Amino acid sequence: MLILMSSDHTKKQLADVLARVKKLRLKPHVIPGKNSIAVGITGNAGALDKALFEGLPGVADAVPVTKPYKLAGRNFHHGDTIVPIGPYGLGGPGLVVIAGPCAVESEEQLIRIARAVKKAGAQLLRGGAYKPRTSPYAFQGLGKKGLQLLAKAKKETGMPIVTEVLDQRSLDEVERYADVLQVGARNMQNFALLKDLSKLRKPIMLKRGLSATLDEWLMSAEYLLSAGNKNIFLCERGIRAFSDHARNTLDLNVVPAVKEISHLPIIVDPSHATGVRARVAPMARAAVAAGAHGLMIEVHDRPDQALCDGPQALHPDDFAVLMRDLGAIGAALGRGLAAPQA
Amino acid sequence: MLILMSSDHTKKQLADVLARVKKLRLKPHVIPGKNSIAVGITGNAGALDKALFEGLPGVADAVPVTKPYKLAGRNFHHGDTIVPIGPYGLGGPGLVVIAGPCAVESEEQLIRIARAVKKAGAQLLRGGAYKPRTSPYAFQGLGKKGLQLLAKAKKETGMPIVTEVLDQRSLDEVERYADVLQVGARNMQNFALLKDLSKLRKPIMLKRGLSATLDEWLMSAEYLLSAGNKNIFLCERGIRAFSDHARNTLDLNVVPAVKEISHLPIIVDPSHATGVRARVAPMARAAVAAGAHGLMIEVHDRPDQALCDGPQALHPDDFAVLMRDLGAIGAALGRGLAAPQA
Amino acid sequence: MLILMSSDHTKKQLADVLARVKKLRLKPHVIPGKNSIAVGITGNAGALDKALFEGLPGVADAVPVTKPYKLAGRNFHHGDTIVPIGPYGLGGPGLVVIAGPCAVESEEQLIRIARAVKKAGAQLLRGGAYKPRTSPYAFQGLGKKGLQLLAKAKKETGMPIVTEVLDQRSLDEVERYADVLQVGARNMQNFALLKDLSKLRKPIMLKRGLSATLDEWLMSAEYLLSAGNKNIFLCERGIRAFSDHARNTLDLNVVPAVKEISHLPIIVDPSHATGVRARVAPMARAAVAAGAHGLMIEVHDRPDQALCDGPQALHPDDFAVLMRDLGAIGAALGRGLAAPQA
Amino acid sequence: MLILMSSDHTKKQLADVLARVKKLRLKPHVIPGKNSIAVGITGNAGALDKALFEGLPGVADAVPVTKPYKLAGRNFHHGDTIVPIGPYGLGGPGLVVIAGPCAVESEEQLIRIARAVKKAGAQLLRGGAYKPRTSPYAFQGLGKKGLQLLAKAKKETGMPIVTEVLDQRSLDEVERYADVLQVGARNMQNFALLKDLSKLRKPIMLKRGLSATLDEWLMSAEYLLSAGNKNIFLCERGIRAFSDHARNTLDLNVVPAVKEISHLPIIVDPSHATGVRARVAPMARAAVAAGAHGLMIEVHDRPDQALCDGPQALHPDDFAVLMRDLGAIGAALGRGLAAPQA
Repeated sequence: MLILMSSDHTKKQLADVLARVKKLRLKPHVIPGKNSIAVGITGNAGALDKALFEGLPGVADAVPVTKPYKLAGRNFHHGDTIVPIGPYGLGGPGLVVIAGPCAVESEEQLIRIARAVKKAGAQLLRGGAYKPRTSPYAFQGLGKKGLQLLAKAKKETGMPIVTEVLDQRSLDEVERYADVLQVGARNMQNFALLKDLSKLRKPIMLKRGLSATLDEWLMSAEYLLSAGNKNIFLCERGIRAFSDHARNTLDLNVVPAVKEISHLPIIVDPSHATGVRARVAPMARAAVAAGAHGLMIEVHDRPDQALCDGPQALHPDDFAVLMRDLGAIGAALGRGLAAPQA
Repeated sequence: MLILMSSDHTKKQLADVLARVKKLRLKPHVIPGKNSIAVGITGNAGALDKALFEGLPGVADAVPVTKPYKLAGRNFHHGDTIVPIGPYGLGGPGLVVIAGPCAVESEEQLIRIARAVKKAGAQLLRGGAYKPRTSPYAFQGLGKKGLQLLAKAKKETGMPIVTEVLDQRSLDEVERYADVLQVGARNMQNFALLKDLSKLRKPIMLKRGLSATLDEWLMSAEYLLSAGNKNIFLCERGIRAFSDHARNTLDLNVVPAVKEISHLPIIVDPSHATGVRARVAPMARAAVAAGAHGLMIEVHDRPDQALCDGPQALHPDDFAVLMRDLGAIGAALGRGLAAPQA
Repeated sequence: MLILMSSDHTKKQLADVLARVKKLRLKPHVIPGKNSIAVGITGNAGALDKALFEGLPGVADAVPVTKPYKLAGRNFHHGDTIVPIGPYGLGGPGLVVIAGPCAVESEEQLIRIARAVKKAGAQLLRGGAYKPRTSPYAFQGLGKKGLQLLAKAKKETGMPIVTEVLDQRSLDEVERYADVLQVGARNMQNFALLKDLSKLRKPIMLKRGLSATLDEWLMSAEYLLSAGNKNIFLCERGIRAFSDHARNTLDLNVVPAVKEISHLPIIVDPSHATGVRARVAPMARAAVAAGAHGLMIEVHDRPDQALCDGPQALHPDDFAVLMRDLGAIGAALGRGLAAPQA
Repeated sequence: MLILMSSDHTKKQLADVLARVKKLRLKPHVIPGKNSIAVGITGNAGALDKALFEGLPGVADAVPVTKPYKLAGRNFHHGDTIVPIGPYGLGGPGLVVIAGPCAVESEEQLIRIARAVKKAGAQLLRGGAYKPRTSPYAFQGLGKKGLQLLAKAKKETGMPIVTEVLDQRSLDEVERYADVLQVGARNMQNFALLKDLSKLRKPIMLKRGLSATLDEWLMSAEYLLSAGNKNIFLCERGIRAFSDHARNTLDLNVVPAVKEISHLPIIVDPSHATGVRARVAPMARAAVAAGAHGLMIEVHDRPDQALCDGPQALHPDDFAVLMRDLGAIGAALGRGLAAPQA
């Protein structure tokens, strides 16, 4: 923490700040400047709360120096985390692609699409059983029935299942069926849910909230890590900016930023970020070129009949073309699709 | 819904669109233009899902005409909703001020502050027992003990209690003690929680999410209204924009916007929006001048010892000055503080 | 400047940083931390460029401590600037209201409206002769003719004139007629224009750019101040955020922020910020309650025939009501409308 | 244009709207709905101004159907524009890479870097002679001397020159030396400058403003096209959002969006968007994978001595690695670097 005194602070105010630092059993370092004085603080184990100093008389600003997260950062965990999902490892050079429909609608629909995406090279199957919807009048998912259909599709195709957990009530049920539990963007700071999920050991995919800074996102990952679950990975799905030419603004720049400061894998969801079928493939290719560890892509073979987000779903044929392109870009950069591990 | 065909659509594509409209038992109206054709749709009871048309070949855009909310809007509810809270009515000309500490810390702290804010004119007491914190390492509130202290403060001062409900597990407990249940900004789209709250009959204060559009906010209110709870009011607490001179960007313009399209009362929380003590009073005054039905303001008599958000808390003396100013502004505009109803 | 070393920096990298600081004839202060080391720098007269250190190996971040502006800040100019405009002083307790049509359209239109706003209490007359328009096909203003009509209106009513300067070519002409030259939001960082304006001595109103931070805004004011023009004031007119319920997001919180760190007066333009007539009055009242030194409001008596921004123009009758409300709010806060000075 | 009447409009108000449409010699189409009535308008040649209807009593909203640009869109110009720059064509499958230092600093610096980037495969040389700087105290460029050095570098290497034009005064001079005139982000809506540039015939690169919507960007291109200059191309360089992990938010999603609705080429500037050297290569690769027609990248061989934006400059060695990667990604997608045309 660095405390910046205002230019007209009094000696008494500075003395009070120094006293407070010492009371916290930390060490203050006075740095005289031309117009103001700064006080560096050392001796703290983790991040200090800005609020400890910000409100004191004569203090202009308090600048945190230590990052607020410990488990999610690289300071104490230098290597890259590889999250095991079925026979695959997510977080290494091998690309992992999660594909499937937005929502589970029926057995036929799900298995038809699962086979198609598997054939095109996707390793994991996605499908929503519980759907978070902006409107109370929109289709809310098949619930438990949807989970059972996902289990059937897994049995049929061998693909591990990625599905969203919406609340504490259905958590146990979702955990029984899912290989990866997805936390949606709107729940990124549902701290009660995060605490419960931290007690599990199954992999958890944490989507970025629409207005979450990188620090806030990693702090939510810290919640998930804090009770011992190490199998956490992140998913960028677009942020909310002023831009109106797409549903959201896909922030691909966050991919190298995450890789720099965190050991957690990061994948990208171009389907929700764009909301428009024709933009999914360009953004999926861009995500791989930017260094993402994987992708999550919505696929539907009858998008005009889809009960949810049809306009953003790729047709299986287009998905197959995209997978070939992704393989080619990966190869150009010395990467390939992740293969099952022995 | 208005469907805009792309400039190079085919006759077949237009015919498919018209067929789909008719299949939904709605009526299409073809509107020929110079470069494109539009299709207006009528006959629908509520809002149509854009997704029904957006993905169809030849369709350039689908523009919703009907608003997606019914219960939260003024179309079927022309008068203003007045939410009864203890002896007060929120939503009419009388200003309602909620004040108190960010978090309940101890019996002495709470009752001392409660007496101070009551003396200054506040009608309702706030205090967090369960606190949503960005960091898992920050103070998370006293929990049940905090609720019991709020009950003591209510007994002592007669002030109705406003406190946050964080999750489904503690909902019953919070409901037992609270006169108003607060849904925080981060839970605005926690749809599972909203559905549970809709079954209650106690007043609920719905804070706006940091990146929520007005429509999304009202759709979350629609969730709360959908199972019959009519005592809903809104609270603007700042949105997330690029601006870095304050914690968040207080969007006061949303106050007249809400009053125009919704019958629900709206109050403003200048404490969280600004995050800085010195800006709370100017923004509180501005909120009243803009037409807000009330305010929620954090007050602490020892802010440098506060366990949560000390830098934004007003000292009781400054709060008393602010209450006088608010009264004067209200009087200038023909309004006063809400008085207890017989 | 505070340099934060990365957690895995080498001794050599730290030595290089210290050497660079000394080469700049400044003094480094090493502050050891648990996971990283920080280097405070003192001895600099003004702000240091982050770029001097940010790219060096082993440097994680460079945090500026000194603000980049000198003339616009309060460090060397503690009192409030009062900008003289005709017989009025802008920047003190007296409110200054600028009113008039978006664009000058004809002599009759201008003089009719000027008389109406003067009667209602406005002190200064606005009217655009050169109009910045998003579309090349929209009405671009009457140009020189518009300036001449403004001169007539001034002669007729005695009101000083506020009008926009769009580019270097028409600068001399605009200066001849204007009492205040307005720099529009889209020109806030047109540095060539700012440099030219700095050589003038007439008052300049600098509107905030749609995505300008407070520091960037004050740096543009610094350009205007840098060649000696001291009669500068600021105008908040809404920023661009995700919000779609109004044209822009009026950032009233910037009013106390500006007053805290700058001596320059700040007024608010609720007409452009909202873009909708019905929201202008609530936001105007809120601006005064927040502490703004003045307002700029568009008024038109035949808004449905206005050549520019008709939907946001207040009718003179509504403007008169608003002026009464502003007077009442001002009185409640111990302020009134600015009166002519002897 | 589609006019949406409010739910409580009167018959008279509807009649007034219809009358106004007819007065404009356009044709109204009444579309009755359950809660409201819409009026479609046809017969207009270009886009209608929302303002014509928005302010009328009883009108809830006016939704434009026709896009406001004509020359920049694909409606009347279906093929892709190829901008000739020296022997290269920008806008086809061949990638065009512009590289060089942020600012021209000296003859040695410029020619050294020019040779390095040419050797690595860049086709065009960039270098700022006139620099827009946030601070009046920062290095403002060498001006005319810088232009002359660019001419020397061109003579030495044969590379066409891309350089920024800041204002009307230096426009003639810049035009004499530049092969491409760059309009910076802060000047995107400097309409006076755009009008002057439209009279030229040299290629112009229009950078996107930090808070420009796609429509606003294309309307600025429309200004450039409106007096006959056809050699216009666009450059995405990051927008301003809340995100704080990078200087700006690179909006790659705009690349497919532009290609869909405009015939103008689009390139990407990852250097300014990220502001950090380590992120430039990932974002450059992503831009190519997303379909950009080219890139602009800052390169400096002594970045710690650069007078401007050193921290974002790639070292020539890293640039050479990046060029190989770009070639590989391009090849994977059936594209290569643009070759000189006979």
